[in-house]
Amino acid sequence: MKKITLALMSAGLLLVNGGVFAQQTAMEQKPAMAANVDRAKILTAPGVFGNFSTYKVRPDYYKLSSAERKGAAAEVLAVVEKYKDKVIVDAYLTRGFEAGSDFLLRVHAYDMAATQAFLVDFRATRFGMYADVTENLVGITKALNYITKDKSPELNAGLTSAAYSGEAPRYAFMIPVKKNAEWWNLTDAQRLKEIETHTLPTLGNLVNVKRKLYHSTGLDDTDFITYFETADLGAFNNLMLALAKVPENKYHVRWGSPTVMGTIQTFESVVKTLSMAN
Amino acid sequence: MKKITLALMSAGLLLVNGGVFAQQTAMEQKPAMAANVDRAKILTAPGVFGNFSTYKVRPDYYKLSSAERKGAAAEVLAVVEKYKDKVIVDAYLTRGFEAGSDFLLRVHAYDMAATQAFLVDFRATRFGMYADVTENLVGITKALNYITKDKSPELNAGLTSAAYSGEAPRYAFMIPVKKNAEWWNLTDAQRLKEIETHTLPTLGNLVNVKRKLYHSTGLDDTDFITYFETADLGAFNNLMLALAKVPENKYHVRWGSPTVMGTIQTFESVVKTLSMAN
Amino acid sequence: MKKITLALMSAGLLLVNGGVFAQQTAMEQKPAMAANVDRAKILTAPGVFGNFSTYKVRPDYYKLSSAERKGAAAEVLAVVEKYKDKVIVDAYLTRGFEAGSDFLLRVHAYDMAATQAFLVDFRATRFGMYADVTENLVGITKALNYITKDKSPELNAGLTSAAYSGEAPRYAFMIPVKKNAEWWNLTDAQRLKEIETHTLPTLGNLVNVKRKLYHSTGLDDTDFITYFETADLGAFNNLMLALAKVPENKYHVRWGSPTVMGTIQTFESVVKTLSMAN
Amino acid sequence: MKKITLALMSAGLLLVNGGVFAQQTAMEQKPAMAANVDRAKILTAPGVFGNFSTYKVRPDYYKLSSAERKGAAAEVLAVVEKYKDKVIVDAYLTRGFEAGSDFLLRVHAYDMAATQAFLVDFRATRFGMYADVTENLVGITKALNYITKDKSPELNAGLTSAAYSGEAPRYAFMIPVKKNAEWWNLTDAQRLKEIETHTLPTLGNLVNVKRKLYHSTGLDDTDFITYFETADLGAFNNLMLALAKVPENKYHVRWGSPTVMGTIQTFESVVKTLSMAN
Amino acid sequence: MKKITLALMSAGLLLVNGGVFAQQTAMEQKPAMAANVDRAKILTAPGVFGNFSTYKVRPDYYKLSSAERKGAAAEVLAVVEKYKDKVIVDAYLTRGFEAGSDFLLRVHAYDMAATQAFLVDFRATRFGMYADVTENLVGITKALNYITKDKSPELNAGLTSAAYSGEAPRYAFMIPVKKNAEWWNLTDAQRLKEIETHTLPTLGNLVNVKRKLYHSTGLDDTDFITYFETADLGAFNNLMLALAKVPENKYHVRWGSPTVMGTIQTFESVVKTLSMAN
Repeated sequence: MKKITLALMSAGLLLVNGGVFAQQTAMEQKPAMAANVDRAKILTAPGVFGNFSTYKVRPDYYKLSSAERKGAAAEVLAVVEKYKDKVIVDAYLTRGFEAGSDFLLRVHAYDMAATQAFLVDFRATRFGMYADVTENLVGITKALNYITKDKSPELNAGLTSAAYSGEAPRYAFMIPVKKNAEWWNLTDAQRLKEIETHTLPTLGNLVNVKRKLYHSTGLDDTDFITYFETADLGAFNNLMLALAKVPENKYHVRWGSPTVMGTIQTFESVVKTLSMAN
Repeated sequence: MKKITLALMSAGLLLVNGGVFAQQTAMEQKPAMAANVDRAKILTAPGVFGNFSTYKVRPDYYKLSSAERKGAAAEVLAVVEKYKDKVIVDAYLTRGFEAGSDFLLRVHAYDMAATQAFLVDFRATRFGMYADVTENLVGITKALNYITKDKSPELNAGLTSAAYSGEAPRYAFMIPVKKNAEWWNLTDAQRLKEIETHTLPTLGNLVNVKRKLYHSTGLDDTDFITYFETADLGAFNNLMLALAKVPENKYHVRWGSPTVMGTIQTFESVVKTLSMAN
Repeated sequence: MKKITLALMSAGLLLVNGGVFAQQTAMEQKPAMAANVDRAKILTAPGVFGNFSTYKVRPDYYKLSSAERKGAAAEVLAVVEKYKDKVIVDAYLTRGFEAGSDFLLRVHAYDMAATQAFLVDFRATRFGMYADVTENLVGITKALNYITKDKSPELNAGLTSAAYSGEAPRYAFMIPVKKNAEWWNLTDAQRLKEIETHTLPTLGNLVNVKRKLYHSTGLDDTDFITYFETADLGAFNNLMLALAKVPENKYHVRWGSPTVMGTIQTFESVVKTLSMAN
Repeated sequence: MKKITLALMSAGLLLVNGGVFAQQTAMEQKPAMAANVDRAKILTAPGVFGNFSTYKVRPDYYKLSSAERKGAAAEVLAVVEKYKDKVIVDAYLTRGFEAGSDFLLRVHAYDMAATQAFLVDFRATRFGMYADVTENLVGITKALNYITKDKSPELNAGLTSAAYSGEAPRYAFMIPVKKNAEWWNLTDAQRLKEIETHTLPTLGNLVNVKRKLYHSTGLDDTDFITYFETADLGAFNNLMLALAKVPENKYHVRWGSPTVMGTIQTFESVVKTLSMAN
Repeated sequence: MKKITLALMSAGLLLVNGGVFAQQTAMEQKPAMAANVDRAKILTAPGVFGNFSTYKVRPDYYKLSSAERKGAAAEVLAVVEKYKDKVIVDAYLTRGFEAGSDFLLRVHAYDMAATQAFLVDFRATRFGMYADVTENLVGITKALNYITKDKSPELNAGLTSAAYSGEAPRYAFMIPVKKNAEWWNLTDAQRLKEIETHTLPTLGNLVNVKRKLYHSTGLDDTDFITYFETADLGAFNNLMLALAKVPENKYHVRWGSPTVMGTIQTFESVVKTLSMAN
């Protein structure tokens, strides 16, 4: 059984076929002047900024000549290459699942200004110029707040030993969560109890759903961005039902809105797929 | 009296005049290399993905030449044909009933990635390129949760013996349902009781309204997608009133928004109708 | 004093100057192969479908040549003529009153598919092609539910003897109403009591405001579509205040949104007015 | 000290520099066949209709030649002239204060159909054709309901003797107010008490803020349109804070949304200002 | 340790690299006929108007020739220069962080009409013409209301001695706050107590987050506009969490919506960055 701990979500992207770009940036790692961002490290470290943005391709993109659209992916990849020492980018195709977007980008960086510079440059490419941004959420990673070794040793053990053993994930979800003032006015002990109650019934799902959490209070109109990867959509639905059935759910004022579902792809594949037209 | 159980909604589409495409895909079933999806089976099996998407045709479509618009349907049908071993597609004309859309597509597949691939290819056709997606909801079918033989034997018997005996349905409705945290925090027994209360007064409506349920918690910003077919809109209105009058309604935070009403048509007919212009 | 009972709202349209089309369709009634819909009958019968749709004319309509715009009304009237045995259409100019629309159509038919066919054909005219639909609500007429001869004899007598005695109405209002789950979970007797309470103070307004009710639960995201005609906007405001002041109002989750106000005109007049440009 | 009673808000417009049109229409008053509407009278009479509409100039307006844009104001003023015996129009520049509009029109008439005819003609001018309407609210003036000589003699005396003594107002605000069902289900005496409580602390503000009230229940999706003029924005902010601090505020379900702030200008000045482009 | 008091946020802008314009206007200060607005003074005085507006650059801007776009910044700076004796302007790049905007402007003036004149002129530049305004909020500065020397001497001392000692801020946030009727109906003493409770836990954050408050009740659909600058996004997130955890949060009906995050830049840099395209 392949053991991947919760925190090590990074490898998933590499297993997806349909493009090789992500693998190259992660693997070639030449001793260049500007070293690539270490993917495994940035995806597990606290204090990292995560930026989730969704886009819709404008209809007039398809009025460009086929040749122009064919060159779009290379231009986008050049921007990714330019920033490879500052940001990592994951791309997801959402067309066919979402009305609000055609694709989702997840950008990680140690410095938000680098994320902005990358996205500004992406928007200046031909493809980026024809992509309207429809949602943008910003968050920061933190060490575990509640289910720590000290405060909740058993659940912490359960969490850290839980291992994803499913097939390589094919689907990802980005789901914002905002809690009401009653939640934030609970004591730390009360919130710990609620989070323990929500953690227990979901431990079993860690074998087939990977999770990652970003904190956003004040940085954006949400408190958390929850991110999931899975190969088993039925299992994911069951996990979310389990989370709906705990008292913590009563404190939610936003859970979704939007729920963004996409297939995990390389950025190259996303651009190429959305550049097709008869 | 023609007996069709609740679960067997599949045949309805075949009885609608105005186009023969749906019948062909369901009936010809040549022993090709890629066999067609078995319509009756996929529409009754659990674990099947249902994708509901609505579209508005952009005004500039009607600036294309009449010849270009005339070729649109064939191009769309070629995409349906290409995916006939992976997805089945139902189409509904909503123009004249809805402000938010001109047509609705319901796509079933055992694999959501196949649904995405089909819809991406559809959007790359000339007609698809001029169609803006205005809503997209994703769900999964499951075996009955509450009104099972074990938990509620009498109602289960009622449900499974109830038979649609009306005329071939001409209208379909897609209505999302989302429940609040109080609902999900009820015990299973409490929810069973509420669902029994809602099931009893609606058994009588099964003779003239067909129903199908999709589960969406976490997959989208709704808990359920409810789908109906009927030839009798007054009976459908009465069924919905009966559902409004049970306590379960107090747990609804979304019921509709949108309520999508369309006429059941072949995909070919929908494309041809929406391609007309003086 | 001219006596028109509540139910007989049909004549109002004929009294409006500014166009003669509606009068012709209602009066000529040649013994053609397809007889016109009987206006007085369809506007009083239960089980009739009412479709309210609002439209905004797109700015590029006014870039068409003046000659093209001049031909628009005749083309629209030809569609009305084509469907005269299946639907009746009332038109209202809302520009100048509403931000969300330029005109409102009210279509009655015994068969919703006929309404759809008519509206699809209307949208295929030059004028219709340049009109974006901004709202669409569907309802069905029913016999009185609560204030019947049996259940509430006195109020029923008051209602049926109340007579509109004002000038020919010049203004119409379309106002959706949706009630909450608490309302629908009242007993029939409780709802009867609330409706009696709301009926009594409004009887006096029937002399200068005509009313018509459509039921929409499940057919659309509203429970009722209320429709009014009046020549006296102050009296209408007073009627609505009286309805605000009864306890039933506490059960409303939607009352308006939109409130659509228009002047009663012939369809020809509406199209001609909206086709003008300097 | 210049004494202008609450009701006499009319003169304010004449004192604003930047254009002379409004003064001319109010002052020249030739004994023409169609006499101008009497501005002072229509602005103080009950039973008058007030129509507030906001507009955004579409970007393509600035692609017209400079000469075409220069002729826009004259064309608009010709429409105002045409209707001078039926409506009066006040114009406000909102660009720079509002995201939802570039200008606001306030139209008064004894007959709403005249208002509609005027606005339809305005929209048919070159400037009007490039202006998208973004909000439209309709109301009617009434005599004082609560703070009357009989019901509340002292406050009535305070209100009628309060005099605006500030500089000529430069700013206007249009703020819709909608109250909940609990408010409307209070007795008249209870509502009187609440309105007395809200009137007392605001009497002092009448020296530097002018107010006018329109009633909209049923005519639009608001109960009231409140309109203010001031030269002192800090005083206006204090007045609104005083209104927020009385119990009546607990009954508000809409207060603003939008709050529209503009500078008081002549219509000519508004059109000319919005017609500039480098 | 560099000591900058809370009120002296002005210097921050000057420390940001990427453009020199803001420094020039603040430093050259020639004894011209129209003296520049004193930046330090206007940013600390009460009774000053703050105008926050966000913009999205329309896609067709990038269809202008590269030369035309290159001249955009100079044209914008000329407008800033023209108004330098009346308004000060701060600019922030939001593209890459926000879906609703590409840049944010903060304009301060002693006279709101000057702000309007400046923004109207800005919108008439080539760049401004291609920028759609997506949000606009207006507020006024006031002396401290609650945490004064008299009412709350210890906290006042804490506030006034708190010093920003972080790096020059790189990020700014604009977050509207609206409170419910219950808040405004508290007594002054009750509100003071709540504000003391919210002030205490946030004093510690003043070393790395600067704050400024604008009052908007009645001026716009918000009660306050809160503005922050920081170099430490994690610290800012912690400050906002601290504010979420006090009882005052229970009175919020709007906190964000939108939360606008941008990098602090010169106006020139913002225009140049958004004028790039491949």
